[in-house]
Amino acid sequence: MSNCIIAQSGGPTAVINSSVVGLLHANKESKAFEKVYGGLNGIEGILNRNIIDLSAVSDEEINHFRFTPSSGLGSCRYKLKDLENSSEEYERLIEILKEYNITSFFYVGGNDSMDTIAKLSKYAKKNNVGITFMGIPKTIDNDLMFTDHTPGFGSAAKFIGTTAIETYLDASVYINNGIFILETMGRDTGWLAASTCIARLHDKPVADFIYLPEASFDRYKFLKDVRKKFEEQNKVYIVVSEGIKDKDGKFISELNCSAQDNFGHAQLGGVSDYLKRLILEAGITKRVKSLELSVLQRCAMHCASDTDITEAFNAGKIALKFAVQGETGKMVSINREDNELYNAYYSLVEAEKVANNVRYFPTEWINKEGNFINEEACAYFEPLINKSPKLTFEGNLPKYKVFNQ
Amino acid sequence: MSNCIIAQSGGPTAVINSSVVGLLHANKESKAFEKVYGGLNGIEGILNRNIIDLSAVSDEEINHFRFTPSSGLGSCRYKLKDLENSSEEYERLIEILKEYNITSFFYVGGNDSMDTIAKLSKYAKKNNVGITFMGIPKTIDNDLMFTDHTPGFGSAAKFIGTTAIETYLDASVYINNGIFILETMGRDTGWLAASTCIARLHDKPVADFIYLPEASFDRYKFLKDVRKKFEEQNKVYIVVSEGIKDKDGKFISELNCSAQDNFGHAQLGGVSDYLKRLILEAGITKRVKSLELSVLQRCAMHCASDTDITEAFNAGKIALKFAVQGETGKMVSINREDNELYNAYYSLVEAEKVANNVRYFPTEWINKEGNFINEEACAYFEPLINKSPKLTFEGNLPKYKVFNQ
Repeated sequence: MSNCIIAQSGGPTAVINSSVVGLLHANKESKAFEKVYGGLNGIEGILNRNIIDLSAVSDEEINHFRFTPSSGLGSCRYKLKDLENSSEEYERLIEILKEYNITSFFYVGGNDSMDTIAKLSKYAKKNNVGITFMGIPKTIDNDLMFTDHTPGFGSAAKFIGTTAIETYLDASVYINNGIFILETMGRDTGWLAASTCIARLHDKPVADFIYLPEASFDRYKFLKDVRKKFEEQNKVYIVVSEGIKDKDGKFISELNCSAQDNFGHAQLGGVSDYLKRLILEAGITKRVKSLELSVLQRCAMHCASDTDITEAFNAGKIALKFAVQGETGKMVSINREDNELYNAYYSLVEAEKVANNVRYFPTEWINKEGNFINEEACAYFEPLINKSPKLTFEGNLPKYKVFNQ
Repeated sequence: MSNCIIAQSGGPTAVINSSVVGLLHANKESKAFEKVYGGLNGIEGILNRNIIDLSAVSDEEINHFRFTPSSGLGSCRYKLKDLENSSEEYERLIEILKEYNITSFFYVGGNDSMDTIAKLSKYAKKNNVGITFMGIPKTIDNDLMFTDHTPGFGSAAKFIGTTAIETYLDASVYINNGIFILETMGRDTGWLAASTCIARLHDKPVADFIYLPEASFDRYKFLKDVRKKFEEQNKVYIVVSEGIKDKDGKFISELNCSAQDNFGHAQLGGVSDYLKRLILEAGITKRVKSLELSVLQRCAMHCASDTDITEAFNAGKIALKFAVQGETGKMVSINREDNELYNAYYSLVEAEKVANNVRYFPTEWINKEGNFINEEACAYFEPLINKSPKLTFEGNLPKYKVFNQ
């Protein structure tokens, strides 16, 4: 009987560990593999034989792990060289997997990870190594193609939406209020910022304006809108995606850009500070606060969506089932039947199609002014942020369990 | 039968509305006053007759209000002139209160609000106006004298502690990790930053260093400590209070200071960015992230402490009871019997003693190095952040109710 291995890659989410636990449960039921190994720090760690036996971990610890945010097996941002340039890493990896008698490899990640899955499965097929490679989707950005949404997104959206209502309340207590700017993640796409359209107080959205990378940003129009709204209601609440761009496709935050990650993506941030400066310089008001949610939005298990946790779990479970059927080079995708009687079902998509591809927020869900989101989008978001998880506490704070430290 | 009025002042907290609801409940039971009025936007609003009848609000709405963060009656930062200089505002206020047949005035606030209570009760006694003035404590900073702790603090500490564990996990996923800096509020005192000593993963505190205003900050010692720790464990987690000072008592963030509030307090912020720059310039690592929790820590009802909500409620309840007994110029204070069998009881203290006074974090609870907190402090913090509130949801996000909009 052979073994399998699961590892995590890319930026963490609140629910990425649930997928690992889903796969463990599926193997417990089906006994398809003798052991489920965990690769620590993704491919980078596996290449260094940082491998643990997850099947040997107690049920209690696995249950804490299920409700632990962030990549509890550790992560990496390791990009395999193109096969045409060098096959050395591929050979080393396969050698290590064979050493552990591993016949299925699972990778929980985003589009860069699906690139890895596509490359490895291509290599494996070509060289007849007898190992299958399967991707399990994960990203708070919700920007993977060929899936209705991605595990991790619903929880991030729930935290951001909750935070939007709460900071709106905080920003509205005085007679003379100011302007509040909430900055969300979203380098290329506006899904996270857009999801705040469902954040309401007394049945009215708390956000006055929502700015996404999918609608080009015009600073003159922005200042005109904000000034008008501020004169009307003596306060303005703005949500902005870190990746907003001008009409030429240039990042508004580009001047604040200080570094690049290993994949050559610009590390963004600081758009809200830029907008704050614009407002101050235009003299609309001196009371401007900006808040960058930063990593909070991708690790806030304490405010996660239970639907999201469950779907992440199911995606892991189903990945194993498909692998047993001999599938390889695929990613599990989530489909929805309809919004009202929300019901998710799972299928497969070629990992190569997902890799290095981006699913943008539909422009037909953005208003004509380019500064708000329509009702259809709200109906899309609502079912994804459902219910709260039942966390375990140690003393009075959540009890979490990880394996990478 | 006469009426009473309650209003809120100063910076919001997650539980400030619970005190209003506690007072409403006490009046429902005792029927001491015919009506409980709510003054919108504190004294500033009352002077403009922005007054509503809270007794006429439905039980359902009051229950939503009880679990709504931030000042739902609106707030102000209005400082009464000293009586020696002008009594005009005092006369106007008393006139309005008499117009509404109000014989008791309740103010939920921090030390500036207690200054208001002390002044008004002094004026009322001197001029025999027959109105009592009572303070109900509120501040996330926990810096009021003559009370074991303040309503609002436990919830802020719970959110900060939870966030510390979750961002620590986020900051530890790679083989090569960096340095993470979490900045909490706390202009004069380090209670909030110190409370992160109870944030643990696998029974070990997540914070490596905690810096408070009560221990003078030395940048050379800081860089030495951080460098050593980074070399040891390839990651460092730092918690810092916005108000840390150097040995001469100068705010470290002073250079980032951009404004002052109405009480002449410097508006701080940006210490974490300053520390980040120090680390980068010292060349310890290029991977440094800083996170300013900003207003999130004072409005996160979704992660509030139920003990805190209950105590805020009880403080409001008891304020009414004492007012009926004819007490005036006092603030409700919370006392603890002991840590293990934690039990809070309530008494009164002269508002004047609390006003314009600050309760510092005990230096005997800080380690010799001035960069961490000892066990005794953990025992103090633990009971204050107990349990989670049962929130009402609308759709999938919390349903909140306020009266100032």
